[in-house]
Amino acid sequence: MREPPQTDEGWYALHDFRRLDWAAWRDAPQREQDRAVEEGVEYLQHHEDVADAEDGASAVFAMVGHKADLLVVHLRPTLDALSTAERRFDRTALGAFTEQSTSYVSVTEVSGYVSDAYFADDEEEVDTGLKRYIEGKLEPEIPEDGYLSFYPMSRKRGEQDNWYDLPFERRREMMQEHGEHGREFGGRVKQIVASSVGLDDWEWGVTLFSDDPTDLKDIVYEMRYDEASARYSEFGPFYVGRRFPPEDLPAFLGG
Amino acid sequence: MREPPQTDEGWYALHDFRRLDWAAWRDAPQREQDRAVEEGVEYLQHHEDVADAEDGASAVFAMVGHKADLLVVHLRPTLDALSTAERRFDRTALGAFTEQSTSYVSVTEVSGYVSDAYFADDEEEVDTGLKRYIEGKLEPEIPEDGYLSFYPMSRKRGEQDNWYDLPFERRREMMQEHGEHGREFGGRVKQIVASSVGLDDWEWGVTLFSDDPTDLKDIVYEMRYDEASARYSEFGPFYVGRRFPPEDLPAFLGG
Amino acid sequence: MREPPQTDEGWYALHDFRRLDWAAWRDAPQREQDRAVEEGVEYLQHHEDVADAEDGASAVFAMVGHKADLLVVHLRPTLDALSTAERRFDRTALGAFTEQSTSYVSVTEVSGYVSDAYFADDEEEVDTGLKRYIEGKLEPEIPEDGYLSFYPMSRKRGEQDNWYDLPFERRREMMQEHGEHGREFGGRVKQIVASSVGLDDWEWGVTLFSDDPTDLKDIVYEMRYDEASARYSEFGPFYVGRRFPPEDLPAFLGG
Amino acid sequence: MREPPQTDEGWYALHDFRRLDWAAWRDAPQREQDRAVEEGVEYLQHHEDVADAEDGASAVFAMVGHKADLLVVHLRPTLDALSTAERRFDRTALGAFTEQSTSYVSVTEVSGYVSDAYFADDEEEVDTGLKRYIEGKLEPEIPEDGYLSFYPMSRKRGEQDNWYDLPFERRREMMQEHGEHGREFGGRVKQIVASSVGLDDWEWGVTLFSDDPTDLKDIVYEMRYDEASARYSEFGPFYVGRRFPPEDLPAFLGG
Amino acid sequence: MREPPQTDEGWYALHDFRRLDWAAWRDAPQREQDRAVEEGVEYLQHHEDVADAEDGASAVFAMVGHKADLLVVHLRPTLDALSTAERRFDRTALGAFTEQSTSYVSVTEVSGYVSDAYFADDEEEVDTGLKRYIEGKLEPEIPEDGYLSFYPMSRKRGEQDNWYDLPFERRREMMQEHGEHGREFGGRVKQIVASSVGLDDWEWGVTLFSDDPTDLKDIVYEMRYDEASARYSEFGPFYVGRRFPPEDLPAFLGG
Repeated sequence: MREPPQTDEGWYALHDFRRLDWAAWRDAPQREQDRAVEEGVEYLQHHEDVADAEDGASAVFAMVGHKADLLVVHLRPTLDALSTAERRFDRTALGAFTEQSTSYVSVTEVSGYVSDAYFADDEEEVDTGLKRYIEGKLEPEIPEDGYLSFYPMSRKRGEQDNWYDLPFERRREMMQEHGEHGREFGGRVKQIVASSVGLDDWEWGVTLFSDDPTDLKDIVYEMRYDEASARYSEFGPFYVGRRFPPEDLPAFLGG
Repeated sequence: MREPPQTDEGWYALHDFRRLDWAAWRDAPQREQDRAVEEGVEYLQHHEDVADAEDGASAVFAMVGHKADLLVVHLRPTLDALSTAERRFDRTALGAFTEQSTSYVSVTEVSGYVSDAYFADDEEEVDTGLKRYIEGKLEPEIPEDGYLSFYPMSRKRGEQDNWYDLPFERRREMMQEHGEHGREFGGRVKQIVASSVGLDDWEWGVTLFSDDPTDLKDIVYEMRYDEASARYSEFGPFYVGRRFPPEDLPAFLGG
Repeated sequence: MREPPQTDEGWYALHDFRRLDWAAWRDAPQREQDRAVEEGVEYLQHHEDVADAEDGASAVFAMVGHKADLLVVHLRPTLDALSTAERRFDRTALGAFTEQSTSYVSVTEVSGYVSDAYFADDEEEVDTGLKRYIEGKLEPEIPEDGYLSFYPMSRKRGEQDNWYDLPFERRREMMQEHGEHGREFGGRVKQIVASSVGLDDWEWGVTLFSDDPTDLKDIVYEMRYDEASARYSEFGPFYVGRRFPPEDLPAFLGG
Repeated sequence: MREPPQTDEGWYALHDFRRLDWAAWRDAPQREQDRAVEEGVEYLQHHEDVADAEDGASAVFAMVGHKADLLVVHLRPTLDALSTAERRFDRTALGAFTEQSTSYVSVTEVSGYVSDAYFADDEEEVDTGLKRYIEGKLEPEIPEDGYLSFYPMSRKRGEQDNWYDLPFERRREMMQEHGEHGREFGGRVKQIVASSVGLDDWEWGVTLFSDDPTDLKDIVYEMRYDEASARYSEFGPFYVGRRFPPEDLPAFLGG
Repeated sequence: MREPPQTDEGWYALHDFRRLDWAAWRDAPQREQDRAVEEGVEYLQHHEDVADAEDGASAVFAMVGHKADLLVVHLRPTLDALSTAERRFDRTALGAFTEQSTSYVSVTEVSGYVSDAYFADDEEEVDTGLKRYIEGKLEPEIPEDGYLSFYPMSRKRGEQDNWYDLPFERRREMMQEHGEHGREFGGRVKQIVASSVGLDDWEWGVTLFSDDPTDLKDIVYEMRYDEASARYSEFGPFYVGRRFPPEDLPAFLGG
């Protein structure tokens, strides 16, 4: 009998990727550009500020390559709040210069592979440290500065290598090996893992953060040799960029 | 000899996904916006009202992410009625602000895996409860409120794992295991399953409804461990959104 | 040694799928709409009338879903006639409101799996009935009314299941089993099978016709359990619609 | 040890596929249409004439289906000449009514599978006939009239069926069987085979020519049963059309 | 236990592919064209000049085929510098005539397969030659003239042939065989290999340079027979073009 892991969910996540219409931007009169900058900064500041209220977090990133110019990440307690945030951006004067080149919808998750005790509600074993750790997974902060790599992924359901066909214990062992290797990047790479089963096209969305983009390469590269990844994972497109504070938007658009 | 399951069909379904041209919307004069709202509300109310006449059902959803802004679901006794509903929307002033980013055509179905008795017309065994259950599958209501997840899927025809190569009894066992796990989500998740073989690119379209979007994630995630899903299913894109009453369209467009 | 089946070819087929630019249509002055309707009806009538001259057949279908609004099917003795028909539509005032969302090029075909006698020119065995049957396959009529399902398909060339690696006799057995199951839908479903090897992306284009769209679903669904389909076929996208007479074009565009 | 075949290269080939913007064409004033026709004819004649100088060949084809309206094939001794020809077309008044829907870059090739003697520079065995044959492969003429089928293809690198994993002798046997079957279409089908490894997405581009389009179907269909094709080939999209002389461009655009 | 190779990283690379809107270019008044040329030349010269300062390199290429008209390659010590260079191009008057048809983000890399000594910091074994060799890999020059072939690739993770499942020693043997074959193209082909794990959709981006485009074909073709490639590599799209000096931009646009 197959045994799914237990899971607990936290905030919903929207990765909202935007491509700028640079030709239209270039042609726009100064007044329109000013208004777009103003409404853009206001939107971003307003949505980032929500974090103070402990009911979510937002951040904006300058992306490299053709897939997007901007990425706005929203974490919110409800799916409705994501939907509203998305539509609000579409209605700003800045939004009118963008098209939504892609997006990703997910919900932060911790699973029984990580800690049986947590899911067994074993109060003695679940100490404050673990509780805080799990809270940090479910209601994560977005690192103030640094580079981001985002990619969706799924477990493989091949005819020989089928993750969902494996016994729980075997999956847990692989997840633990994988976790240990991840922890070797402890101080250097932070991650937000969110499930998108039933919500978007892949099974998880992974967002990595680091002050050095080669760390983003190294962690994915080295962990690809783990069995959980080498034999049982499939990866979607990868997106890379760098966080900037809303007040730097004019520089981004003008520089 | 291979034995296909018997099936019975009910209403045809059109999932009509629309992306809004927010830049055009923003630029449109108030009068045009007003007219689009008016015609949009009228269209949606008129098509939802059909449900009272017991010849179908319609509902509109606000979608999250780039794949669509709006989803209009139509269930009708004939394919022609779907075609007409689709074209009518295209001709509203609201439709002119949208493009049909994708769509899905299917027909509600019950199959012999569920109940042999029903297909054997065994009057004694087919009690009123079963009849009502099957009617609810073939001519389903769309839940008044709550979140939706839609995805198309097919049975796998791999070189080792080939659903259509299995004996009927083996398929039925897997479907029953799958059904039992689905029923564990009884009060929380409702579903409309419709066949699209010969009609659209995958073999089925599945629409899930719940008041809590994590239930949408949980049901798909947990059932993925069932053999019918783990080894014998392939999934297309997933779409997520929330139903809203037609009279909230102005808020959706303005808020 | 591998033995390809013998084949005989008839009319060339173009499936010309068109999406309407409803926003442009809505904005067009009445005069332009009138002209588009007039030229559209004239084009369609002119091309359908060709059938009387026994040198081809054409028909127009209202399609459901985002893949196309209209499908014009042309059957002609030469590829050039298809090319001319396609360009003529592009140059009508109606064509200017459409984009060709997709298309399919093929040629009707009968193969040696069906009748050895026919290909052996065995006059005694090839009676008038068989001749007429084959003629109907190579120069088919398009049913006056009813629903259509079109899909392209190929035989699988997998590493285990490779159709082209099988002996002729084995392929013929499977084709005969498949044919017998198809004939069970005798009065209800008609089909046009046309080869597209060397002409388009898949190996065949299949067009099914029926007065009841659930028959279109049933035939594809049930025949999927045949070995020829279950293990040795791959299917492309499916398109569904309903034939209408050219004089109903105004209703289609206005209704 | 794996042994690649020896190869010799000739002219570079560009298959330049163009879709016409028929709506823009229809709306254009007569003067603009006239100029587009004039510049188009001039461009095509000028590029076809190059053939007289024995430094290349060009031809234009009317394509059937949505993938392209026109295909211009250029064969030239240098890649630079292809690049210049492509840009020149973009800058004609006709080019402005087209978009380049796709393209293919390759270089004509003969390989050691065909003739060891040629590559061993064995003067005695390489008679004038073989030399001329090989020259005709490397610097091919484009048949004056008739139908064309173009498709890209690669050898399969599957986990069981891996062409590049086979010994040279085994590959040569299959190529010879394949070649013999091809020669059965001797007088009816001509072909240009060009390698695109390192240049474009597939490994070869194959262009077939025939006065009867069913021959294009038959040769691909029958040769698909050869082991080299059945087990070791993967095919891209297929394009079909008919050559026309530059002076027929007005008829193509107007008729 | 799986052992990833050690790696060292150098400059970040952006391959920025641009398609020209030739119709818009043709319609633009001379003054606008002049300005686009002027800003384009200035941008390209400014970015190529950076190479003198030893903190990067840039070059522009005229591409053949529909995938791109221009490719601008940037190598820089930081990801931020790439991001800035990309946005600056978007804001030139030339950029306004282009769309970014695709792009690729990577970072130059040497790995432990090449030299254990280098990674072991074994000063005696790492002589000046090796140091210079590795420096040339991490901070490469872009050859002054000649043809380029760019393609992304990944190691295969199939169910039988899984690169990441192999022991280090086995992978190193294959890499060395592969390297030896590559060195046979020594004077004729130069390459820049950059990792894109965690940064873009494939695992590496490979850029080849040669004065003869058939060498680009030959090296990829012959090396495809190496086990590392035949059984363990998957290739993305291929792009081909030729470098030109910024001052030839007017000829490119006008000729």
